[in-house]
Amino acid sequence: MALLVVGSVALDSVRTPFGERQEVLGGSATYCSVAASYFTDVNVVAVVGEDFTDEQRRIFAGRRIDLSGLQTVSGRTFRWRGEYSGNLNVARTVETQLNVFGGFRPTLPPAYRESDYVFLANIDPDLQQEVLAQVRSPRLIAADTMNFWIGGKRDVLVETLRNVDLLFVNDAEARDLSGEGNLVTSAMVIRAMGPEVVVIKRGEHGAMMFARDGVFMTPAYPLEKPLDPTGAGDTFAGGFMGYLAGAGSVTGPAMRRAMVFGSVMASFAVEDFSLGRLSRLTEEEVRERYRAFSRMTEFEPLP
Amino acid sequence: MALLVVGSVALDSVRTPFGERQEVLGGSATYCSVAASYFTDVNVVAVVGEDFTDEQRRIFAGRRIDLSGLQTVSGRTFRWRGEYSGNLNVARTVETQLNVFGGFRPTLPPAYRESDYVFLANIDPDLQQEVLAQVRSPRLIAADTMNFWIGGKRDVLVETLRNVDLLFVNDAEARDLSGEGNLVTSAMVIRAMGPEVVVIKRGEHGAMMFARDGVFMTPAYPLEKPLDPTGAGDTFAGGFMGYLAGAGSVTGPAMRRAMVFGSVMASFAVEDFSLGRLSRLTEEEVRERYRAFSRMTEFEPLP
Repeated sequence: MALLVVGSVALDSVRTPFGERQEVLGGSATYCSVAASYFTDVNVVAVVGEDFTDEQRRIFAGRRIDLSGLQTVSGRTFRWRGEYSGNLNVARTVETQLNVFGGFRPTLPPAYRESDYVFLANIDPDLQQEVLAQVRSPRLIAADTMNFWIGGKRDVLVETLRNVDLLFVNDAEARDLSGEGNLVTSAMVIRAMGPEVVVIKRGEHGAMMFARDGVFMTPAYPLEKPLDPTGAGDTFAGGFMGYLAGAGSVTGPAMRRAMVFGSVMASFAVEDFSLGRLSRLTEEEVRERYRAFSRMTEFEPLP
Repeated sequence: MALLVVGSVALDSVRTPFGERQEVLGGSATYCSVAASYFTDVNVVAVVGEDFTDEQRRIFAGRRIDLSGLQTVSGRTFRWRGEYSGNLNVARTVETQLNVFGGFRPTLPPAYRESDYVFLANIDPDLQQEVLAQVRSPRLIAADTMNFWIGGKRDVLVETLRNVDLLFVNDAEARDLSGEGNLVTSAMVIRAMGPEVVVIKRGEHGAMMFARDGVFMTPAYPLEKPLDPTGAGDTFAGGFMGYLAGAGSVTGPAMRRAMVFGSVMASFAVEDFSLGRLSRLTEEEVRERYRAFSRMTEFEPLP
């Protein structure tokens, strides 16, 4: 089944200890949809400015990505400038130019309204609600958010979460949203707000999923040369949601596999700047890294 | 087979965000031997002062722990005072009184010289070498160390490592010892120094093992109420080495199980101050938490 992704397309200027890039392709919808397209058909709702070039658009071409929901409006594309120091887990935002993203109103083409799998990337919770009002009877609604909305639009966010089945957050966001310092307690509090499943992303420390069948934990793939963590979280969500939509399943075992595919795709994202590595993957590379996760975590049960 | 443990017995004064305790039992040999005693016979070589009470000694009683290598000498027992802030991963040492530990010379009772499994806790690398000179033909020599020796006695430490099969370090120590920022590269560099197996302990983020059969990763058990992380690393080593010695095995699969038992025992250690929880475990609690690690990490392979 197709996955609906609503989020941003951006031009990122990034500096990490390993290099820098100016105005390269980024944005939550970009990372998420490219990652998900390895598993399923993806419908993207986002906005770009008139400066968005055909070459930049080419990242979506030849993939299972439908762009009829990608609006092009007058003005400049969203731009983000950030840097990472030794600890690649924490980005420092140097500059944000919302540009056309500031006036973004997600309008779903009619065909998208039947979506079974929906991913609301980190956008204004008011807009997340607008999207939900347009989809008919989705099977799984997942959302991401960030401290900016947790602090600035808490009430709307909490209202939105009532209708969300699965929330992706990082550990700091989980603590902020729940008001609890402990991650286990945080997840319990957030689950009581609505989302039956809470996935806490911890960068190089992996990810935890709190669901009906208990806690499930995946490590991050140990990389020798991580270059740029930008987009890793959205890529994780893309691998996760793309796998579920492709499998057409929301069972506990499917969610666990989705956690691993999320980790697999995120590990590739970090191996290069922008979508350099993520856009050049073969299906066999994806499967081989999934097998590597099995090998990395397998141990014998008690006799 | 019996495990030989050489390390410290200490009286710890600890403050965490969850409470404080004065002069409670601690020390690497204490945590390690109590944890290991759930799996195998343990022979302890350490030193205490004349102030060490019968009540304090009772922690070892009724367990599979032989104390004929525990020296009692005139003077006061080693004391450590430390505190942890919100991040329980990092201890701040407020005061160290070496006392009798400052003159410690590890002398092995004759029966200990035949030990097959040896754990050299974090002590002066010169003393670690003295121990190795006294054991005849051990099957597995494991060691721990810390930044103090990596910085202050690097040459002796590096010489010692040539004869060590397995090194336990935390991530900061791995980086310091190897001079590499990346953990994968750090482990490769350390393995080239001698230890065929490198275990990197990452506190609440779990542990990684680099060995001949590749990388193996275990999460930390997600605790709702961790109270005091003191001794968790030595407890990890105790569970790890105790399991191997008890199983009489050093195969890859045995080492992976040892990683899980190390994580299991460390998770109990953190649930209370001192050895409060660790000393009251039932075998069934240990096995049940091992099964919990299986449930927490299991996912289906690719079809």
